[in-house]
Amino acid sequence: MEVQEFEKELRKKTEQVEDVLKKYQPEETGLQHTVIEAMNYSLLAGGKRLRPILMQETFEMCGGKGEIVEPFLAAIEMIHTYSLVHDDLPAMDNDEYRRGRHTTWYVYGDAMGILAGDGLLNYAFETALRAFGMCSGDGELMQRVALALFTLARKAGIHGMIGGQAADIQAEGQEDPVTEEQLLFIHENKTAALIQASMMIGAILAGASEAEVRQIEKCAYNIGVAFQIQDDILDVVGDSRELGKPVGSDAQNHKQTYVTIKGLDTAREAVESLSGEAVEILEGFDGRHAFLEQLVLMLINRQK
Amino acid sequence: MEVQEFEKELRKKTEQVEDVLKKYQPEETGLQHTVIEAMNYSLLAGGKRLRPILMQETFEMCGGKGEIVEPFLAAIEMIHTYSLVHDDLPAMDNDEYRRGRHTTWYVYGDAMGILAGDGLLNYAFETALRAFGMCSGDGELMQRVALALFTLARKAGIHGMIGGQAADIQAEGQEDPVTEEQLLFIHENKTAALIQASMMIGAILAGASEAEVRQIEKCAYNIGVAFQIQDDILDVVGDSRELGKPVGSDAQNHKQTYVTIKGLDTAREAVESLSGEAVEILEGFDGRHAFLEQLVLMLINRQK
Repeated sequence: MEVQEFEKELRKKTEQVEDVLKKYQPEETGLQHTVIEAMNYSLLAGGKRLRPILMQETFEMCGGKGEIVEPFLAAIEMIHTYSLVHDDLPAMDNDEYRRGRHTTWYVYGDAMGILAGDGLLNYAFETALRAFGMCSGDGELMQRVALALFTLARKAGIHGMIGGQAADIQAEGQEDPVTEEQLLFIHENKTAALIQASMMIGAILAGASEAEVRQIEKCAYNIGVAFQIQDDILDVVGDSRELGKPVGSDAQNHKQTYVTIKGLDTAREAVESLSGEAVEILEGFDGRHAFLEQLVLMLINRQK
Repeated sequence: MEVQEFEKELRKKTEQVEDVLKKYQPEETGLQHTVIEAMNYSLLAGGKRLRPILMQETFEMCGGKGEIVEPFLAAIEMIHTYSLVHDDLPAMDNDEYRRGRHTTWYVYGDAMGILAGDGLLNYAFETALRAFGMCSGDGELMQRVALALFTLARKAGIHGMIGGQAADIQAEGQEDPVTEEQLLFIHENKTAALIQASMMIGAILAGASEAEVRQIEKCAYNIGVAFQIQDDILDVVGDSRELGKPVGSDAQNHKQTYVTIKGLDTAREAVESLSGEAVEILEGFDGRHAFLEQLVLMLINRQK
């Protein structure tokens, strides 16, 4: 696929996700309208919508059809968004800006920022649960929805994303330098877990076999970890204009990264090997996967 | 039932809930063990366990049998606990003590307090979803579990508990005095919604009809709102030694309550009428409900 064609396709798919988000966003009414406004302010702040796109593409690659995936597309983005809203809080990273506008707590206050995050996490499950109403009593489809929900909850929770965030905070507070084991644990859980949830849910809802879902889980692990290592590489060699943050800022902050621990060459080899394996897994699937492959390579090999 | 017998029964049922919580609490292992310790510190801090007890009793009253309710007993207490953990945060109520010991954020830090709350909310769904694994492919039971999950999510979210908390924060920030409409909205959502979820889930899992579940929803609304109005009454007339806070503290804080808006007599009549109706609804059920009735009356008519 030509680069231009790919980018056009990507824009189209991003717009489709935006439409789904607008369809499932909560209505801003009632005496609690402010918290709902804060939720929608965060949810509709733009962003690449990579997780829903990865879910939709995996769903289609595995032969999925119909709208059963839609509540989950919205739910995964709500969970990703709540994690950013809580990350930005003064008690966490204390960020005033994200994606060129003020963060949720900065606009609505700390307390409302906490509640908006809670609201988005809770509403993600409320939204995903609506898939049961689309099963028309089909027992097998209900089983798939139940498994998709369980995957969502598991990968977003203490054995997934929250676990990664907690380990990150714990590591920042320790005196000893961060170990390779800790770093990989944080990358795997903080970043890769939601990518795994996205792609696994796509596969599960499409009716993929257990073995296929395990393959997708491995593929998404590679994508998430390679993405993070590439981030560490770009911090050392990237163009600061393209990257949007000063090159070498991790080293200046004495932050341990994959590159500081293993060296640049090993880091590059790891990205190469992880992404090669990810693409190989995708090529093992019969369904159309050209776009998905290109998306994965774009994510991993980006220069900014 | 004699008071002593009732209290003995209540202690037994509280212990049974503690056993269920211990069975479903997350294991404190892995590089993220600190956040899990913080979650369990909050979850196992004692407390009356009223919501799980109400769920179990309603389940039995509606003819429910077996362990299918257990994951939900744990889940509702996890959700109640997370709401306390986040409420206590410096950015919210800034409380250093709860139930005679330090609050979660005070022990583990602000950031870990936020993550522990997130972790509990997420783990509540992860836990409740385990009920699907107890359905042995029974399609009707799966439908009940799905409806119970939806009820949990709805009543805990922006159209339930979070909505009530947000409306409360919004009301505190306004210049005009709080209206009766606002106050009832806050009581209904902040307090009654989780009691509704508890009792409705008990009924749903037991296979109650839609009409019966609606009756239980009404009953639980009455219990929750009467409980809160009684709280407002006790603030004015209670014995400060029994209540554990200075009598009249709401009035001193210029806080609008049901009593300041409607007067003491109307407040007492409201409690009387709401609790009478709640008991009447329970008496309409064929199943054993003597303990549940006494529990409801104890909650509503308490003098501390």
